[in-house]
Amino acid sequence: MKNKEIKVRGFHLDQFGHVNNVRYPEMLEEARYDFFDQFPGFFSRVQKTGFYIPLTHISIDYKKSSFLDDILDIRTRISGLSEASGTIHQTITIKGTNRVILEADVVFVAVDIKTGKKASIEGDLRVELESVINGCQE
Amino acid sequence: MKNKEIKVRGFHLDQFGHVNNVRYPEMLEEARYDFFDQFPGFFSRVQKTGFYIPLTHISIDYKKSSFLDDILDIRTRISGLSEASGTIHQTITIKGTNRVILEADVVFVAVDIKTGKKASIEGDLRVELESVINGCQE
Amino acid sequence: MKNKEIKVRGFHLDQFGHVNNVRYPEMLEEARYDFFDQFPGFFSRVQKTGFYIPLTHISIDYKKSSFLDDILDIRTRISGLSEASGTIHQTITIKGTNRVILEADVVFVAVDIKTGKKASIEGDLRVELESVINGCQE
Amino acid sequence: MKNKEIKVRGFHLDQFGHVNNVRYPEMLEEARYDFFDQFPGFFSRVQKTGFYIPLTHISIDYKKSSFLDDILDIRTRISGLSEASGTIHQTITIKGTNRVILEADVVFVAVDIKTGKKASIEGDLRVELESVINGCQE
Repeated sequence: MKNKEIKVRGFHLDQFGHVNNVRYPEMLEEARYDFFDQFPGFFSRVQKTGFYIPLTHISIDYKKSSFLDDILDIRTRISGLSEASGTIHQTITIKGTNRVILEADVVFVAVDIKTGKKASIEGDLRVELESVINGCQE
Repeated sequence: MKNKEIKVRGFHLDQFGHVNNVRYPEMLEEARYDFFDQFPGFFSRVQKTGFYIPLTHISIDYKKSSFLDDILDIRTRISGLSEASGTIHQTITIKGTNRVILEADVVFVAVDIKTGKKASIEGDLRVELESVINGCQE
Repeated sequence: MKNKEIKVRGFHLDQFGHVNNVRYPEMLEEARYDFFDQFPGFFSRVQKTGFYIPLTHISIDYKKSSFLDDILDIRTRISGLSEASGTIHQTITIKGTNRVILEADVVFVAVDIKTGKKASIEGDLRVELESVINGCQE
Repeated sequence: MKNKEIKVRGFHLDQFGHVNNVRYPEMLEEARYDFFDQFPGFFSRVQKTGFYIPLTHISIDYKKSSFLDDILDIRTRISGLSEASGTIHQTITIKGTNRVILEADVVFVAVDIKTGKKASIEGDLRVELESVINGCQE
């Protein structure tokens, strides 16, 4: 698990004075990049396995609103890894509180770089992903 | 159902040369606004019923990539309305083709403006929402 | 000169209820793309001349605020072309009024694709740019 | 002067693989917020003086491109304060290098909250702004 903090700025808001729903996906993507930054060279090593791992699904449960100057605490972890897909779970809370703003699940699959076809998550690719999961548990 | 076209620009892309996943939610929100623009005064009338209808969930299935200069055809409709919630279904295709880029379901609920509590979709609020559904079928 | 209309949405706003200054540059870029869409193949033909034409300067005078549901009328034209650079002038007004929201000047130069060095705007590149200027006057 | 670091992500890029010009204004705004965060309560105290300080002009000189994974080092300071306006100067370099990506000047004025009219920067408002300038020099 990895924390990323983002402070709510004026340009995140909308006519209701809270963060607009369209701003959270970019924050979540930022937090995912930040999560994988813990594992330098991860994306290069994935590429060497002959696969890439595109996102195929995102679902977000919006629970509460967040407001100007709130410090968002975004937690990211790989929560599941089957042969068919992996899942990244992300939670945003207001820093220092239990106020949950949203929960998100982001699903990725493996695609063979040469054929462009969906593939099983196995072999070297699986090793890379498991090392991330294990690296986070340490 | 309502169509909204958005042409893919350079600033929508990422390192893979396709539209980045974080750009679609804003396009979908734009298309939802455009959908409700067909019903002038809709949001004021909803407010007069004593409720507002925040989004509580969005899920997006990313099917295919889109690229610079593609013209995205975003179709929006209210696909479901129960007592507890409503669902807006949105599909993005490449204009003039059957290439589906993504499908999204966006769920909204009713919240009582005075109490801030979730409420049933009934009475005048239901009438407003049904008039939108029927208005689209005409 | 070319008009592009953009309707102000909730996600454009900030804590003051008006369009945040950081949203306008994307709108201006959209309007520039839309401007050049009038001249199909323009960017390919520029590339064939051996140059590209990056932006090197943007300056924006913010005059008035714009608000939710305003329809912004963005006007774009090439307002100057010297040997050293070209200038694109853009004005945003509220549609159907004389209320000027902002005026912007965007400067581009020519860069030699092979050497990466700044070059004079002359020869075939100049012809392409002048055809755009003349095309707009028609 | 205050530093703010932002790492370049995929969603900042465009078809040229570099950060698109429309992404920098949001980064600059983020850095300005971060700058004023050093002075807790600054915006409330400004409001109490009876004025607000809207941006009226931004100009950006784009010098070099930045790319995926670059760490941008954004430096922000108030570089000028006359009776008519104040100027914030911002520079983006690649962290740990002298590679200047852009330089920006952002101009603000004082507007009387009651009348909505432009005013001189003097009295309590001037004191607040000078305390920021002096606070940074410490």
